[in-house]
Amino acid sequence: MSLVEQTIRSVAPVLPHEISRIQTLLDRKTKPVGSLGHLEQLASRYAAARGTAEPEPPKACVVIMAADHGVADEGVSAFPQAVTRQMLQNFASGGAAINAIASSLGVELRVVDVGVIGETPPGILSRRVASGTQNFTRGPAMTRAEATCALEVGIRLAGDLSEQGYTLLGLGEMGIANTTIASALTAVFTGESLQKLVGHGTGIDSQGWQRKHDAIKKAIELNKPDPSRPLEALALVGGLEVAALAGLSIGAAARRIPVVLDGFIASSAALVAARLCPALGGYLFASHCSVEPGHRVILTALDLKELFDLNLRLGEGTGAALAMPWFTAAASVLRNMATFESAGVSGRDG
Amino acid sequence: MSLVEQTIRSVAPVLPHEISRIQTLLDRKTKPVGSLGHLEQLASRYAAARGTAEPEPPKACVVIMAADHGVADEGVSAFPQAVTRQMLQNFASGGAAINAIASSLGVELRVVDVGVIGETPPGILSRRVASGTQNFTRGPAMTRAEATCALEVGIRLAGDLSEQGYTLLGLGEMGIANTTIASALTAVFTGESLQKLVGHGTGIDSQGWQRKHDAIKKAIELNKPDPSRPLEALALVGGLEVAALAGLSIGAAARRIPVVLDGFIASSAALVAARLCPALGGYLFASHCSVEPGHRVILTALDLKELFDLNLRLGEGTGAALAMPWFTAAASVLRNMATFESAGVSGRDG
Repeated sequence: MSLVEQTIRSVAPVLPHEISRIQTLLDRKTKPVGSLGHLEQLASRYAAARGTAEPEPPKACVVIMAADHGVADEGVSAFPQAVTRQMLQNFASGGAAINAIASSLGVELRVVDVGVIGETPPGILSRRVASGTQNFTRGPAMTRAEATCALEVGIRLAGDLSEQGYTLLGLGEMGIANTTIASALTAVFTGESLQKLVGHGTGIDSQGWQRKHDAIKKAIELNKPDPSRPLEALALVGGLEVAALAGLSIGAAARRIPVVLDGFIASSAALVAARLCPALGGYLFASHCSVEPGHRVILTALDLKELFDLNLRLGEGTGAALAMPWFTAAASVLRNMATFESAGVSGRDG
Repeated sequence: MSLVEQTIRSVAPVLPHEISRIQTLLDRKTKPVGSLGHLEQLASRYAAARGTAEPEPPKACVVIMAADHGVADEGVSAFPQAVTRQMLQNFASGGAAINAIASSLGVELRVVDVGVIGETPPGILSRRVASGTQNFTRGPAMTRAEATCALEVGIRLAGDLSEQGYTLLGLGEMGIANTTIASALTAVFTGESLQKLVGHGTGIDSQGWQRKHDAIKKAIELNKPDPSRPLEALALVGGLEVAALAGLSIGAAARRIPVVLDGFIASSAALVAARLCPALGGYLFASHCSVEPGHRVILTALDLKELFDLNLRLGEGTGAALAMPWFTAAASVLRNMATFESAGVSGRDG
């Protein structure tokens, strides 16, 4: 059995009655029932995913998977392709938004080159599968072997991070033109129209939007991805970083490590992963809903409710990192709050 | 000149052009312009309030002001009045939600008895002004001297916390029946109808709601609070903890310490404070918008946009504490992110 198939099979579903059991414990704590709102759902889902009613403070890491995309040749992004590699150097020297945010919140960061054009800069993990994908308006983005290999990069990294003690992973990404990839995958796996899905990415104008829309339409017509065959569909219209994040998600869930989504691209990876591995849902947490219109489509398809909406549209795992302190707080509520009985506090209505 | 008046006069307005200047600096950082969404407004407003474009990581503290309310006799709460003091004991022994949340996020906590019925439990700061307020359906809740004294408790504590190095304060409160007080103050200072303002607090039923509504209506008709005389209005239909939080807000702003609102009651204190001190607005930050309908009315009146909406309705400063890591992240973005020039990253469109 392949590593991918073996990992998918080892994901144990998070049981709804386990979530309910933990919610019942929360209801005995010294607060009006339900008064911590969505933080309570976060607490009960996180604890159930971890397999304990009193989870320890999470040890959190954001993983940025980075790659280039052949479709950048079609003029679908406001930034030149060289920015992918330049941003890897920026991550390595600590100057990007995710560096500033993660370090300030005690969240670790791993940046992985899965297929950026040019050499891997020092300080970045090199797990290169190819030097970017092919332009999917002219043929498949990846071979099936490349997509599998990128999934394995993520699965293996999840294993390494589990051994290093991490108990919460955030999905980050960098790759010029990758909202184009995410839009294509979302169209394939949800059936939503491109008109509704395609957004303005890092800031393209209306002509750029049309080029992006047309490129995706052409790619889907040419490659005919079939949503009932998710690995093939991923290879045909996906990206190396998206595949690696999908693998990371499945690998994390196999070790009961919850996964925090970030924006549209990271969420498209979670969507692919959930189609490959239906038991994955209980391990997925949406941090925010971005400005990209396709993001809401994915969250609805995954039946996830975002924790906040800050109008983010950066990626890099920034939204995931901003959500992580709330996992720490939620775990602390479960571990450290008194019950009405233990604290000698009167209940409702005297 | 009284301490209250002197403190009000020493609050320097936060200048809009200073906020714009800091936003311009953010626009040079290595990210698409505006892509960090509301976190950018948080960063520029926080930095402008602190008076520096590169603020240090905030040293944060939530202050819980606690007091009892004579109007509890009218059956306006789902919990008995004794719970106020029991919860002080719970705060002191570390078992409440705010203890679990604040400690997990590196946020300090101070709990102050401004007028709880019974003795101040060990571990709680005693700054008692009275043993609860009077029932405002029968006369003024406080004398003008008591309201002034409670304001001074907050002002003095802000001074102490400033000397201890705190640079960010969150408003927390505890006091059975205090959504009734907050509703009365909000009606007085915004002119909104009680029908729209009054909510279900910790969980009263429809009969309880009617009693609460009628008690506030009676109190306003009897005491005739005048919104153009905010100190008198506060004394007539306010509460000791609300007055102390209003004083804390003004005292913090006088030392360029930004103030994070929590739920409806904490926000009603900020509303009173802003009416007493019109320059205060630039120092106020809304963490969330609670389930209580009056909270939105206050945020609109203060022209504040909340950072998140977790359906919280607990108080204790829990929402303020959950927001504080984002101030840390926002300050780090300003201090630590590279610019396009410094990082050698290409800008838009090549």
